[in-house]
Amino acid sequence: MFNHKPATKTRLAPAIRQELTAIAGPENCLFEQPDLFTYGYDAGSQTALPQAVVFPGSSEQVSAITQVANRLSVPLVPRGAGSGLTGGAVPARGGIVLSFQRMRRILEIDKANQLCVVEPGVVNGDLQKALQDCGLFFPPDPASAEFSTIGGNIAENAGGIRAVKYGVTKDYVMGLEVVLPSGDIIRTGSKCKKDVVGYDLTELFVGSEGTLGTITRAILKLVSIPEARQTLIAFFPDMARAANLVASARRREPVPAVMEFMDHECLRALDAARGVNRAEQARGMLLIELDGPAHQVKQGIHDLVALCRQHGASDVQEARTPEERSELWTLRRGLHASLHLLQEHWFEEDISVPAASIPVLLESLQSIAVAHDLIMANFGHMGDGNVHISFQGKRTALSGRQCEQVRRAIYRATVALEGRIAAEHGIGLDKMHHIGWNLNPATLKFMATIKQTIDPRNILNPGKVFPL
Amino acid sequence: MFNHKPATKTRLAPAIRQELTAIAGPENCLFEQPDLFTYGYDAGSQTALPQAVVFPGSSEQVSAITQVANRLSVPLVPRGAGSGLTGGAVPARGGIVLSFQRMRRILEIDKANQLCVVEPGVVNGDLQKALQDCGLFFPPDPASAEFSTIGGNIAENAGGIRAVKYGVTKDYVMGLEVVLPSGDIIRTGSKCKKDVVGYDLTELFVGSEGTLGTITRAILKLVSIPEARQTLIAFFPDMARAANLVASARRREPVPAVMEFMDHECLRALDAARGVNRAEQARGMLLIELDGPAHQVKQGIHDLVALCRQHGASDVQEARTPEERSELWTLRRGLHASLHLLQEHWFEEDISVPAASIPVLLESLQSIAVAHDLIMANFGHMGDGNVHISFQGKRTALSGRQCEQVRRAIYRATVALEGRIAAEHGIGLDKMHHIGWNLNPATLKFMATIKQTIDPRNILNPGKVFPL
Repeated sequence: MFNHKPATKTRLAPAIRQELTAIAGPENCLFEQPDLFTYGYDAGSQTALPQAVVFPGSSEQVSAITQVANRLSVPLVPRGAGSGLTGGAVPARGGIVLSFQRMRRILEIDKANQLCVVEPGVVNGDLQKALQDCGLFFPPDPASAEFSTIGGNIAENAGGIRAVKYGVTKDYVMGLEVVLPSGDIIRTGSKCKKDVVGYDLTELFVGSEGTLGTITRAILKLVSIPEARQTLIAFFPDMARAANLVASARRREPVPAVMEFMDHECLRALDAARGVNRAEQARGMLLIELDGPAHQVKQGIHDLVALCRQHGASDVQEARTPEERSELWTLRRGLHASLHLLQEHWFEEDISVPAASIPVLLESLQSIAVAHDLIMANFGHMGDGNVHISFQGKRTALSGRQCEQVRRAIYRATVALEGRIAAEHGIGLDKMHHIGWNLNPATLKFMATIKQTIDPRNILNPGKVFPL
Repeated sequence: MFNHKPATKTRLAPAIRQELTAIAGPENCLFEQPDLFTYGYDAGSQTALPQAVVFPGSSEQVSAITQVANRLSVPLVPRGAGSGLTGGAVPARGGIVLSFQRMRRILEIDKANQLCVVEPGVVNGDLQKALQDCGLFFPPDPASAEFSTIGGNIAENAGGIRAVKYGVTKDYVMGLEVVLPSGDIIRTGSKCKKDVVGYDLTELFVGSEGTLGTITRAILKLVSIPEARQTLIAFFPDMARAANLVASARRREPVPAVMEFMDHECLRALDAARGVNRAEQARGMLLIELDGPAHQVKQGIHDLVALCRQHGASDVQEARTPEERSELWTLRRGLHASLHLLQEHWFEEDISVPAASIPVLLESLQSIAVAHDLIMANFGHMGDGNVHISFQGKRTALSGRQCEQVRRAIYRATVALEGRIAAEHGIGLDKMHHIGWNLNPATLKFMATIKQTIDPRNILNPGKVFPL
């Protein structure tokens, strides 16, 4: 297992360094420890030092670098912004980090066909800005959207807040250019909505966390920016009522774009941050956003306010201006920071269940919190069944062993509801030894066969996703 | 190449027959020529005789049969209704046809989560009937929906008429149970909207035409039946105006569920069938259908009628009753039969381009028709860029060589627009030698590697999709 130390103390042999320098140019290669340091971590807790960082400028350079790595069996770890949470971008076994900072061109925006072609280093937020003038947007919106890259979003199959209506990253990747460990450059998918030419290889790479191929270009499906958008928050005396409301709102047309929830502990955290006292009366909150044609949104939000009241909401606040909307979103966006006012260090989980099972899941989580004497805060995307769980010992900090026991209890509850132990934050290093909760041995064996066939020397992001 | 003769004259050895009989029961095995005959063709033109037909009753039986076939290197060809058009279900190299007639249970309809779990032999139309009571439907609607099976729809990634709004089959497959050539039973995907556990293997099997694994179970995403649905047809003095209208309608919200076009030759065929004379004034027709909440559909259809007139439609007819709607659809549904009144034997093509390129594609097709002295009728799904082309020599029937020249001209025009040589009818036997139009050698090599890894003895539907 990987243990926070530099993965390897040896430097890359001068001959390899020369080869990399010849391919990418000396100004695009880092070999010295102080320079390497910032490429050794992501937004999670694990770190490891690479032996080199290379900034390729083209698919051909990626191919050439990959051929060097493959010939010499040196690990190669593709990296976007390094904003992942489960160690996907951490060079756990050292080697070469392939950073896409230089490959951030938007190559094409095709307004008529509502698609674009981008390099992997394009920042999600930058793409959104560029699309705005064309009246288009790219729906996947992970919390990291302002800094995470499209390549990283694709490699992790990022989710986000609008998934209840718009789906996740894989629903918007029409095609990819991928550099295989052999150095071969393949192209999957196309710009066509209907395309049955050969195997559909695109999804094999989406969410594969850089372990099967390096994405060097992507064709993305885009959506028209909705004419209007309206937001409300509603406070509920218990989470069950909130969950029931979500269940009925999920079946409406148009389905809300956002249905976020926060439980009692989250409300307490927000209270602490804001010096108010909402958590005394309310046990849960929903943030709901509708988008679409103006007249439809207006009617829809009116109906939703009534629906919230029917479901026992004690207080419903509708944003009537962009400022009010932004204020409501501040509550949601500030949540993660606010939670740290209650507790300095939380353990975090990211799981999902079929959305209708959310009420049962929340009850199970409550039981786990009691049984393990935990403080637990649950929030997330109730509309799409994805819950983010933060937990810690109520009296004393959990030991590693205790934390693992809690995780197992959470996974057991999740799997009992046909849920998944990883929803949108990847498997990476953190969950690879838990993957058997969801995948039977035959399926794991098949995944390993695919990996070994494509990457026989195990150079691409080795030691991730599942044990080989 | 395959040539309409029985693929093999040898019968299966008695020992193999005994094994198959022991697995599936004697009543579920056919070994005699007259019985085998109806399992040797699909809705296309090619045929070949299998050596056995087996009707498995469970995934375990499929696994056991597959292990026999794999051990003895006997071809195994999964078959739904055999309604495909490109030879996907034709046992080109003989062997065992695995017919899913017995595995047609709808195992679960989960109304709250809008999904269902089915066996592969369920007929698309039967599933729709079963879902109706729950207010749900499964959007993929190939023309064969009344008889084609879900397993076949998935294996071919079937499209259909509603794809402009609802997408194609792959957009609705959440997870699969698949029997690999080894006999291993794997499970891909899940019932969760967000799921990043391991590789996304589902799409690898969707559209793989039975060459990588045998689908024995599927989790399908469902959609609420829209409250209302309204239909119009509009006649245009030229196809360019119709195409422009579609381009602007595609960007509206809600996007029409259906935008079907027929060109001048199609109108002539309909005239011949109906004894009228529309084609004298009109050069093209659009059939447009909107669905959604009643008030929205009502307003939307009103706007679309105005838009048609703005774009120069000479005649717009709106269906005001279900009977009128059904009458409009009769025009579209009767088209294929009507075309045969003009010409007994047509060659047919199924291609797609990014939707905005349809006007250019139609011009290119026109030039090809002139250059090759053809009668050519084009119709299809203008909203999603998919055109079905029927062609034949204007004076004398085309020879095989001439037909191939026309096909190449069509593919050249398609590829020049970043289009695909197969949109929704598969590659099968018919187009496997043309696949290089769309896939570069590295991509083809990669597909071959995947196929050879999963199916080293090439038992699963051998001789299909691409040359090995």
